[in-house]
Order: sequence, then structure tokens, then C-alpha cells
Amino acid sequence: MKILHTIPREDGFFMPAEFEPHYGCLMIWPERADSWQYGAVAARRAFCEVAKAIAESEKVIMLVSFEQYDTAREMLPEYIRVVEMSTDDSWARDCGPTFVKNKAGEIRGIDWGFNAWGGLYDGLYFPWDKDNKVARKVCDLLEKDTYDARDFILEGGAIHSDGEGTVMVTESCLLSKGRNPELTKEEIEQKLKAYLNVEKVLWLPCGIYNDETNEHIDNICAFTAPGEVVLAWTDDTKDPQYEMSKRCFDYLMQETDAKGRKILVHKLPLPSPVYMTEEECEGLIHWDGEPTRTDGERLAASYVNFYIANKSIVMPFFGDEKDEEAKKILEQLFPMRKVVPVSARDILIGGGNIHCITQQIPLWK
Amino acid sequence: MKILHTIPREDGFFMPAEFEPHYGCLMIWPERADSWQYGAVAARRAFCEVAKAIAESEKVIMLVSFEQYDTAREMLPEYIRVVEMSTDDSWARDCGPTFVKNKAGEIRGIDWGFNAWGGLYDGLYFPWDKDNKVARKVCDLLEKDTYDARDFILEGGAIHSDGEGTVMVTESCLLSKGRNPELTKEEIEQKLKAYLNVEKVLWLPCGIYNDETNEHIDNICAFTAPGEVVLAWTDDTKDPQYEMSKRCFDYLMQETDAKGRKILVHKLPLPSPVYMTEEECEGLIHWDGEPTRTDGERLAASYVNFYIANKSIVMPFFGDEKDEEAKKILEQLFPMRKVVPVSARDILIGGGNIHCITQQIPLWK
Repeated sequence: MKILHTIPREDGFFMPAEFEPHYGCLMIWPERADSWQYGAVAARRAFCEVAKAIAESEKVIMLVSFEQYDTAREMLPEYIRVVEMSTDDSWARDCGPTFVKNKAGEIRGIDWGFNAWGGLYDGLYFPWDKDNKVARKVCDLLEKDTYDARDFILEGGAIHSDGEGTVMVTESCLLSKGRNPELTKEEIEQKLKAYLNVEKVLWLPCGIYNDETNEHIDNICAFTAPGEVVLAWTDDTKDPQYEMSKRCFDYLMQETDAKGRKILVHKLPLPSPVYMTEEECEGLIHWDGEPTRTDGERLAASYVNFYIANKSIVMPFFGDEKDEEAKKILEQLFPMRKVVPVSARDILIGGGNIHCITQQIPLWK
Repeated sequence: MKILHTIPREDGFFMPAEFEPHYGCLMIWPERADSWQYGAVAARRAFCEVAKAIAESEKVIMLVSFEQYDTAREMLPEYIRVVEMSTDDSWARDCGPTFVKNKAGEIRGIDWGFNAWGGLYDGLYFPWDKDNKVARKVCDLLEKDTYDARDFILEGGAIHSDGEGTVMVTESCLLSKGRNPELTKEEIEQKLKAYLNVEKVLWLPCGIYNDETNEHIDNICAFTAPGEVVLAWTDDTKDPQYEMSKRCFDYLMQETDAKGRKILVHKLPLPSPVYMTEEECEGLIHWDGEPTRTDGERLAASYVNFYIANKSIVMPFFGDEKDEEAKKILEQLFPMRKVVPVSARDILIGGGNIHCITQQIPLWK
């Protein structure tokens, strides 16, 4: 593995869209006792369901600590590769490498700086040194070269690419004081353009209410095709999410992408608000003396947090009346893929969802 | 990765010789403070030399703990793959998988039981649970299926195969009470024949004097070609090693291999006896309250402990007057390979040598 200090744009590498062909998917086994209630037993089952659904059409690599290796190997089918790696939690999307590709079909990783979604300012745990080494180690595992972009704090869940010159982000996340406070919005945009090799950055104002990642893009809005997105939506004007989704909608309606196309916005309904229960909170250990979740806390549930596998869409279900409606919309938007729902409450209460616990590895030649 | 409960012989898989083509070589970064003096600094340098010499003609994968990952990545050139894995020490030969191959060119690993060279009877450390998981994890890393042979205690350094139906072992090791005391010699031979798929087991009586592995074969005798071996030798009749080497020589002279060939024995001189110094002992921490080495202790130095890479022989030098003589003999025996010496005192004082810290992975189709 070469550690590269050049810039992907200069080398002709760009970030493909998630709906382009994958080699496989990276995941990390859940274990952290202040994230995953009751010894992560239910979370492990949910992660296994996600892994198995994805593995039907691409390879899955599950990273796991030494301590949990045997459990993971036992619970996962043999066609899923289990590889030991130390991490601080289970968010492959955010600490894993962002892969870029060139026209010859080669791929390379980008190793962004990772500081647990806000570092000492408003990060979610400390330390995060194990997570911050994951991207580089995954590249060595896959025998791929890696760009050193550790001086720029970014998570995979904070960016969505259409593969044709446009990425989407949220201002709430990328301009947050816990990320790159020394950089202006313009400088951040230049970084994204240089590393992801895009011409246009779409800055949605915000994300999902109470999303502790400072409102990652991947929970509110996702490309389903070039020029087309799904946006998490509620018609309940009393819900604080209404105003947030509306601002994103209005922004998107007046924007065009890098190709000059107007953006076609498909509204994807949100489930009814989901709250932590007292029993769930009791299943967590405290972190740094404090509870990590409180009884009645609203969780950032959204159907947008799905994963696009080669032949399927793996989407969260919440046991909500909107589950089937959201599934039908995704089926219409991805007619070539099978939409596979996974009961995702046990992932959601850890702080994210299916897209957050996965990271696609593009197919290479 | 499939975990197989069948027998390699029944599946048509056999152990190739080390001099057959390799995909690469497995190594483990030294770290353990009761094995490697003064923070393993000198050992790391020696391991790097070995890795670089091997990497000139095949891939090298270096397994390393989370804690040492950055150091290993920094010290090793970029063409060597560094992969995180928890281990108890650095003996890839002994805890790594033994690979077997079939006629179609597929390879599989064998996951033997590992108990630190003798378990609670006379093993060298406790616990050894991390080491005992290495073979299986390496197979998952390489996406190879693995035979479950964990009920049989064996180390890679205890066997040498000629790839044509014969393996060599030592009685002192395989019949030791710390290995498989519930099995008779005949039963052990049957196990070896079944798993390595050979017709003949050559039982050398013993190995190198004071070799703490219960005298592994790989320190005393090695195949250089089918029907040909090098045997560690001294002409000093006062040295206890003289009688040991002589017994092995006499045994080999009256034996034939699986093909019915007489065995051509090349004597490889031993260096003058090598002893631990007081300064080296002071650089080690105690284990379980006891010193792991004592001042003046004789070390099991032997030139036989070399590694056969695709295009080179990586052999230990001891700063001894016999270094060049041993090198010349190996050059004559391996005319197609370059003999590369590495100053190996800093490996030797850990308890083994170049063959012990490496494990070949046969080339597969």
C-alpha cells in the first residue's frame, strides 16, 4: 500500500455513485456497551441480517475485535469474510475509506481525519484513535493505495456522490465547529472538489432532527440516479422535522447539478417519531460518567438510510405504518433491484442506520 | 471461509515442499517483552531485514497488533502488506496455518491445535489463545477454506515435507508429553499421513541441543530437494550436539523415502556455540515471575533454520567463522536461488530463527 500525498483530481480519480457496481461492502461488528444495549446481542442479530442481505449480491467483509472474533465467525455464514481489526465502534461508513476510481477502473481509498463526529467540541466518544486508523488499514487489507487526507475531518456519511460531478452535503455537519473550524465554507468546498473530483457541491442546509452526527446527508437525502434524489419528508407541520425537510426541498428545487440538470426530488415519508424506551436506556453503560441516551429521547429514524447493493436495496423498517409505503417508493426508483427490509430499531438506537454501518467498495479491474 | 471437518487425504490435498512456488510469506511482528529484549527494537530491525529479503521474490504479509501497527507500517516498505491481528508472540511458522494443495492448484489451510510448545506441561508461555486463532484467521484473510485439526497439537516447525510423499519430524518433539500424550507414535503417524497426505514419516530421534521447542525438525534438518536434506553438524565430539547430530545422521543413512530413494545427507556445519549475555538477559521482562533466559544459557543456533523463498534462500548469520562456509553449501544446493544472509542473533535470542518466523503460502490457481 502506497500512502499518497497527491490529490485525486490531479490523478484522475473520482468518487463513483453508490449505485455503480461494487466489489463488496465493509462492515464493523457492534460491541461498544455505551452504544449497543444489553451486550449488543440484538444489534449483532440486526447486523447479521444486513450483512446477509448484502452478501446476496456482493462480498461482505466484517471487521471485528479480537474479543468478538469467535462470536462473529459463529454467527455469520461462511461466505462472509471476518477480519480482525480494532475499532472504537461500528460505523464503517464514517471511519472507513471513501473509495475513488479512475477511468482505467483502478480504485484507491481516501483516509480522511476522523474525530468521532465533532472531536472534543461535540464528538460522541473519546478516544477515537482506533477508528481513525481503520481507513488506512482497510486499504492495506485490500492492497489498495490510500490518499492521506487526515488533516481534513470528514465522515463517509457526510457526503453523497452522483458519480457525475456532483456531491451533496449538509451545512449543519460540514460547517459544524467540531469538524474543520479553521476552514471557510469556500475552502471546504474546494477540498471536496479536489478529493472527490467533482465540479459541484450541493449544500443542503440541514438533516434529520436530533441526528447526533450534526445531521449527516445520508440520513436525509440520497441519490437514486444522476439528477434524482429521495428526500426524507413529513407532512406534519407541527413536527420540527417539517421545517427542516422543507428547507432542504426548497434548496434542491432551485438548484441544478454539475451537468446543469434540475434535480428531481422524490419525497420519502418518515416513520412516526421513534423514541428511546426506559428499558433500552437501562441496557446501556454510561460513558464518561454520563448516560449516552435518555428515556424518551427522539431518535433520528429515516428510511433514507438505506444501502444500495449490487442487486438490492437494504432498507430499514421500524414496525411503522409507513414501512410499506417507503418500500414501494424505493421499489419504483430502483426497478432493477430487490428491496430487502431489515428490522432496524436495534441499529437505530446505536445512533445510525443501515447506510451508516456499511461502506461500499467499488468494483475494480 | 469454510471450516472443513474432512481429511485432506480424502479430499486430494497434500502438503507441498517449501521449495515449490509460493504466493507469499506470512510473518508476525515481534513485540512480546519476555521474548524480545529492550523493547524488541533490534528484533524489529532483523524482522524487517528478513521481510525485505523475502519480498524480493514473493508477497509478504506482516501481522501486527493494534498497538504496533503504526510502527510496523512505518518501518516496513510499502510493498509489504501490514495487517492487524492479535497474537501471543511472533512465530508464524508455528501458529500459522500449514497449507495443502490439490492437483487443480487450489490451496487450503490446516488449523492445528497450538499450545505454545507444550501447554501446561512444558509450554513456553500462557495463555496462548491468541496464537491458537491465527491459523483460522489467516485463512479467512486469504479467503481459503480451513481444515479443523485443533484436536491435534502440532506446529509448522515440527514438520518438513518433500512434496513427494515424505515428511520429516523429530521424536523428541512429536512424542513429547506436552503435545499429544494420549496418542501412540503409530497414531500420531497416522494423523500426519492423513492430514499431510504422505506415505512415509521419517522420525529423526532429536534436534538441536537446548532447543526449547522440544527440538523442532526445522532447526536440525531440512529438505533441499526430494531425496536430499541438509543436516546440522558439528565435528566437535565434546559438544553434546555431536551425539545428537550423529544419531540423526545414522538414522537417515539407513532410511529411504516414500519413493524408495536413499536419502542424500549434506552436512551443514553449526556455528560455534552461542550464549545469552548478561546484558541481553537484563533487556527482558520476567514471565510469570521467572526469567525467560539466563545469562550464559546456550541458544539453539543453526544454519538449517533458513527460509526458501521463490528466488532466494534467506539464511541466518551469527558473526561466526562458519557463516561463509554454510552459505557456500546452500549456494551449491540451491543453484537457482540467491542466498541472502541476515544477521540473526536478535531473532535467535527470542527462541528461534528465520524459518520459525516465516510461513510460506503456496501459489494457487
